[in-house]
Amino acid sequence: MALTAKAPAACTARSVKVGSRTATVMRVAAVEKPTNWTENYIKEVPVSLLRPGVDTEDTIRAKFEKVIRDAQDSICAAISEIDGKPFHQDAWTREDGGGGITRVLADGNVWEKAGVNVSVVYGSMPPEAYRAATGTAPADLEKAKAAGGRVPFFAAGISSVMHPRNPHCPTMHFNYRFFQTEDWNGIPGQWWFGGGTDITPCYVVEEDLKHFHGTYKAVCDRHDPAYFPKFKKWCDEYFLIGHRKETRGLGGIFFDDLNDRPAEEILAFSKDAVNHVVEAYCPIIKKHMNDSFTEEQKQWQQIRRGRYVEFNLVYDRGTTFGLKTGGRIESILMSMPLTSRWEYCHEPAAGTPEAEFMDAARHPRNWV
Amino acid sequence: MALTAKAPAACTARSVKVGSRTATVMRVAAVEKPTNWTENYIKEVPVSLLRPGVDTEDTIRAKFEKVIRDAQDSICAAISEIDGKPFHQDAWTREDGGGGITRVLADGNVWEKAGVNVSVVYGSMPPEAYRAATGTAPADLEKAKAAGGRVPFFAAGISSVMHPRNPHCPTMHFNYRFFQTEDWNGIPGQWWFGGGTDITPCYVVEEDLKHFHGTYKAVCDRHDPAYFPKFKKWCDEYFLIGHRKETRGLGGIFFDDLNDRPAEEILAFSKDAVNHVVEAYCPIIKKHMNDSFTEEQKQWQQIRRGRYVEFNLVYDRGTTFGLKTGGRIESILMSMPLTSRWEYCHEPAAGTPEAEFMDAARHPRNWV
Repeated sequence: MALTAKAPAACTARSVKVGSRTATVMRVAAVEKPTNWTENYIKEVPVSLLRPGVDTEDTIRAKFEKVIRDAQDSICAAISEIDGKPFHQDAWTREDGGGGITRVLADGNVWEKAGVNVSVVYGSMPPEAYRAATGTAPADLEKAKAAGGRVPFFAAGISSVMHPRNPHCPTMHFNYRFFQTEDWNGIPGQWWFGGGTDITPCYVVEEDLKHFHGTYKAVCDRHDPAYFPKFKKWCDEYFLIGHRKETRGLGGIFFDDLNDRPAEEILAFSKDAVNHVVEAYCPIIKKHMNDSFTEEQKQWQQIRRGRYVEFNLVYDRGTTFGLKTGGRIESILMSMPLTSRWEYCHEPAAGTPEAEFMDAARHPRNWV
Repeated sequence: MALTAKAPAACTARSVKVGSRTATVMRVAAVEKPTNWTENYIKEVPVSLLRPGVDTEDTIRAKFEKVIRDAQDSICAAISEIDGKPFHQDAWTREDGGGGITRVLADGNVWEKAGVNVSVVYGSMPPEAYRAATGTAPADLEKAKAAGGRVPFFAAGISSVMHPRNPHCPTMHFNYRFFQTEDWNGIPGQWWFGGGTDITPCYVVEEDLKHFHGTYKAVCDRHDPAYFPKFKKWCDEYFLIGHRKETRGLGGIFFDDLNDRPAEEILAFSKDAVNHVVEAYCPIIKKHMNDSFTEEQKQWQQIRRGRYVEFNLVYDRGTTFGLKTGGRIESILMSMPLTSRWEYCHEPAAGTPEAEFMDAARHPRNWV
């Protein structure tokens, strides 16, 4: 008896303001898994996963790929050094170009699970993805849709989640991505950047949150003084567990659909941001990795891990999109904690550090 | 800083065949939480949660409520008797009518978590919910929509999930529900029943699966010989973890949008089905509750619990709908296991009982 996957969900486009400019959002709609989507596993990864001779070194695509490949190497090296265990790698290419490199550290000394994934995708999406385009007259858009076919796109990104063993060590997540559509039926190609780094502790330690946010404020301020306040707020809104009215973690930065200035400038910002993950996160880990902890504190961590799972499987667009459109499941779900816990009507007692955490998750704070 | 919940997702209508008849599906679309939705907690639950004097004893609504209230009582009594611990109850009414009774057994001797919930809802939905209606001309439907307003509906149901400690004892879920819209803008009210009972073991024990499915085949055959094969197949298709191409459990029955014969007949079928939960499930529990098990078998159970979470949070319509439209979170997420586990690229070794389970989940079998 054949089992077939459910139909994927479509997404819509919208506008977003950054400072005084309006960026137009080209949403990636449902992508059907092409017949040539099979992963061809490889031991040695080529210098580039891009289409050879097509996406050459001078392109934004190639420059972004170099940023994320280098970041994967440097971040994994830094994490391994602290943990004592190496990352395991699975890598693959695809017939039509693109591929991926998943690196997972499982059952480590410091981290129960840590992963850093790079992905390069050449795909196509239905024309419904184009709801509006900067500079494209609606008539041209209708004409293009009427001509039929699917819109080719390119997407590249680095994604990571790290779940430590010690409840005093925070979970950390980051993602930096670049998306570009090809010229199609008279509509010029569009592009945008997205990303962010966010922190999910179990307890409020102001010094740690000041360090983390201070690092990212400095990164942002090197590019645009409007960035940090906007991207901190966006982070608090995006990582909201809507049905619980609490955030998943305690902040960070988050941005999407960024294309309001030259691509080279946003590339430089993304590079700066991903290259400060280690500085923002590792000192906090080193500070707490040998802290003692109680069984109750461990169980509280497990409750928060349950929240992490809820957010990722119910709201996180990257996860739900990937699951429903044929992405590599084990890479996508590498973000799941090793273990998690759900208790009926769990509420920490007033005045406890756990209650303090809940207050910060229900009423996001500005740490710097 | 105020946090607002994300906008709920809408659903669509479709037709479904049962035997030679076509039932029209009225989908519940997004329901915004009304301002009078607050739960008023109560210690003693009235005999009926229906609107007094409006939904009287002779109505299908009242008869269905009695079926599910009685079933909640009898099933909780049977489970408590085996476990040794009682259920904790939270109950509430709502200003405009309706209410709920959540019963949870936490940290039991046999079950880590077991819950049986009853819910009665008076709500309203946007007219988009009406895509088609048996006997309603499209022009009448357009006219009704143009008149504006929202469509009042009634929904009642019993929902349960039970997660045992022992990996040789299966998890079990059931749900039986009745949905009815009011006459609205010239379109007559519609109604339908839905439900099912399904079993989620960690290992294939044919004798147990024959017992479970044999019990439900007998129930179905008392009402319509077409039911069992159709509802077993529907169960395998509904509880598919699409991104993994494996089922959550190993079968049961599932039906939805059933309205192709007099309501009293389908009510009798639903009553028969919910009243055979204990017979189908408890003998399997008694058989295995004192089985010895290894740490490896416990971890395998935890991996399967992770799959349970994935299905519920990504695909289960009841869960995602409830979370996004203001339902009582703690009641909805009572279905989450106490603990769960995710390991990167976990695959049981060939020839093991775990591999046998995976084969049955990837290629659903007919047990009777």
